[in-house]
Amino acid sequence: MTPDLQDLFEFLSFPSVSTDSKHKGDVLACAGWLQEKLDSMGLATEVHETPGHPIVIARNTHRPDKKTVLIYGHYDVQPADPLSLWETPPFSPEIRDGKIWARGATDNKGQMLAHSLGIGKTIAEKGDLPVNIILLFEGEEEIGSPNLAPFLEAHREELACDIIAISDTGMVAPNTGTLGYGLRGVACAEVKITGPARDLHSGLFGGAVANPATAAARLVASLHLPDGTVAIEGFYDDVRPLEAWEREMWAKLPGVSDEDYLKVTGSPATFGEPGFTSTERVSARPTAEVNGIGGGYQGEGSKTVIPAEAFVKFSLRLVPDQEPQTILAQLSAHLKKHCPPGVKLEIEIGHDGKPYASDPHSDFGKAAQRALKRVFPGEPMLIREGGSIPIVQAFRDILGTDTLLLGLALADAQIHSPNENFPIANFEAGIKLNQALLEELAK
Amino acid sequence: MTPDLQDLFEFLSFPSVSTDSKHKGDVLACAGWLQEKLDSMGLATEVHETPGHPIVIARNTHRPDKKTVLIYGHYDVQPADPLSLWETPPFSPEIRDGKIWARGATDNKGQMLAHSLGIGKTIAEKGDLPVNIILLFEGEEEIGSPNLAPFLEAHREELACDIIAISDTGMVAPNTGTLGYGLRGVACAEVKITGPARDLHSGLFGGAVANPATAAARLVASLHLPDGTVAIEGFYDDVRPLEAWEREMWAKLPGVSDEDYLKVTGSPATFGEPGFTSTERVSARPTAEVNGIGGGYQGEGSKTVIPAEAFVKFSLRLVPDQEPQTILAQLSAHLKKHCPPGVKLEIEIGHDGKPYASDPHSDFGKAAQRALKRVFPGEPMLIREGGSIPIVQAFRDILGTDTLLLGLALADAQIHSPNENFPIANFEAGIKLNQALLEELAK
Repeated sequence: MTPDLQDLFEFLSFPSVSTDSKHKGDVLACAGWLQEKLDSMGLATEVHETPGHPIVIARNTHRPDKKTVLIYGHYDVQPADPLSLWETPPFSPEIRDGKIWARGATDNKGQMLAHSLGIGKTIAEKGDLPVNIILLFEGEEEIGSPNLAPFLEAHREELACDIIAISDTGMVAPNTGTLGYGLRGVACAEVKITGPARDLHSGLFGGAVANPATAAARLVASLHLPDGTVAIEGFYDDVRPLEAWEREMWAKLPGVSDEDYLKVTGSPATFGEPGFTSTERVSARPTAEVNGIGGGYQGEGSKTVIPAEAFVKFSLRLVPDQEPQTILAQLSAHLKKHCPPGVKLEIEIGHDGKPYASDPHSDFGKAAQRALKRVFPGEPMLIREGGSIPIVQAFRDILGTDTLLLGLALADAQIHSPNENFPIANFEAGIKLNQALLEELAK
Repeated sequence: MTPDLQDLFEFLSFPSVSTDSKHKGDVLACAGWLQEKLDSMGLATEVHETPGHPIVIARNTHRPDKKTVLIYGHYDVQPADPLSLWETPPFSPEIRDGKIWARGATDNKGQMLAHSLGIGKTIAEKGDLPVNIILLFEGEEEIGSPNLAPFLEAHREELACDIIAISDTGMVAPNTGTLGYGLRGVACAEVKITGPARDLHSGLFGGAVANPATAAARLVASLHLPDGTVAIEGFYDDVRPLEAWEREMWAKLPGVSDEDYLKVTGSPATFGEPGFTSTERVSARPTAEVNGIGGGYQGEGSKTVIPAEAFVKFSLRLVPDQEPQTILAQLSAHLKKHCPPGVKLEIEIGHDGKPYASDPHSDFGKAAQRALKRVFPGEPMLIREGGSIPIVQAFRDILGTDTLLLGLALADAQIHSPNENFPIANFEAGIKLNQALLEELAK
């Protein structure tokens, strides 16, 4: 086993489960191990206490003539249960089939340690780095990073940087350089529809009063045209049109055929906004989804009641340049306008996050592409992710800095599931990628 | 206390809760008490074992020149819990405010004993009854009468009769003669809509596949026009139009204004099929109701998933001359036709019951009205009930006989709830009503 893999095995053996208070000591010990490792590379390290788990910071000696690069990662992991489904224990890493099997192997210890070890190697080989580096590793990503934004606010000046790099997203296929330059935003809301004071006998009262479950369904149905287009007035006004190069590039991505989508989702058919491919729909088009709906009798068989109330939980995925607050106002107006008669409507606005997009053809974007080309064959794939990573928006909002998403996670990495794994090849490529990236960003 | 009330108090003190096996002995003892009481009036009685609780039959000596009247009732009761909400113990009857307070006081011991005591009185006064009587009292009404239809089938000839009378429905207002001549039928179905193989991340996949909760909502929305009219093709084809006298009569019923409906239901507004009053809507118009809807995340807050599946439980209330099987076929065709793309639809057909209507102006209907006029002031109110009483349909299907519904239950009787009660006046009126009814039916 190489010394790099030995480091990763040690790192992976800490059950740094951030959500579980009985692992608080393990999370702390993991942060301590990380600090020591970074320290040993010649970096100046600090472990910052937070109300939750600590944030580990490491930096080289900064020089004003060098660009400053911040690399973010997280050393906490998801819980490992159900333990019985793991082929080997989650915190006793093993190598099988060229992959490292352990909780956190891909998400995110493998990816963040690759960056750290790349930095260590460059320092060992060249005495210093071509850039000013700030490593920022938190221990609360899996519980929503509650203390990260306050930390960024409090350390705005020490954390000022030119560009941020994160490896915590997907790689479109094995051995394929992937640069993520966009993320969808999100806007959540819940509606409660109330009718009668209590569940009513549907025989005695059915026909005379509105049924809240029916009203909720009618309201949901009003959100889309039959073809899948969102029917909220103004919803598409600020959507940035897809550029020709994006459509061309995404058509060439591996695993984006309708057959691929059916295989991955298990859905009987693809379905979505007309005029766009599935990848375009999830990457660059907004959605209005029902995440949960409920009302009335939920058990086996039948109970002939008119329910007293029903609820719908919505989340809307947003794309540049939609503003969550504008969209939520449009949604509220739509719901009020389309609420059927005979019921009362309550709207509760939930959390939101802005969509994110940077220019992959900016100087830093081009540098990242050059780095990817030095490590992986062929042209790098430029993608926008359909999900939302609030951290990236927090970096832009608080530090004013863009993020390069250099994903090393494969689709079958089983992150958040039993038997998480990370190919040794990806780990080693990650180390090289860090070295190439810092060189290219320095140019 | 009168001997009649003393009888009722004894009858009410049996906790004859049919659903609870630990009360099996109490149900049997109650049947025994009833048999003895009917026996003491000079009737020939039989207690028929069933796989569940016994059926008590009593009859006078039948003569071929007399009409045969069957009176149905049930001596079992609903459970009494929560006991803490009762002002006095449920099986220790008490008189307060001119009412008898006990479980079963109205539903159905008070009403069925009134008939029995009326018969006893007539026999005591006149030596015999003006009709051939069959009393049929079961002990399983509150658990859906599982053994009644088989019993009717097995005793078809002994139970042959000209008319059936039941007092187990509502009286529209205190001291108001009420003849029910119609009931709505019911037809139930459940649909399951499936999409992806598991709940999907709404960021990674939202937009590319159909959302089963959205599809379920669109399907529900397709069932009605915005004005509340049911949109299923052919749904109203067999609906018997309201007659002018029905609309006139029902407009004069007490407690049927929109304000009354709002007070009773707690709904913010009445809502239903245009062109009909609330009473017409619940009595003589069919409905398509959602009794339950569910899919996706049901907990607090948000979880941004595309649910793998969603369900909807429907019940349709039917009116003469709609046929449940025809309506269920229309519903299935509608659901298949309107199911949105991208999901799979499964339809499970549930139980059904035919709507019921008899002619209140038939000879027996007129006789019942005359009897009501002898006991209550003013003209009797002729109503159709919005609910469904499968027993009535079973009588028609198996014995071929119509039923007169002579309800003595007031809206505030708290049947199935704590503090069930029955006015002494209704009990005494019930005894007189039985005597008048048998005389009038004999004419």
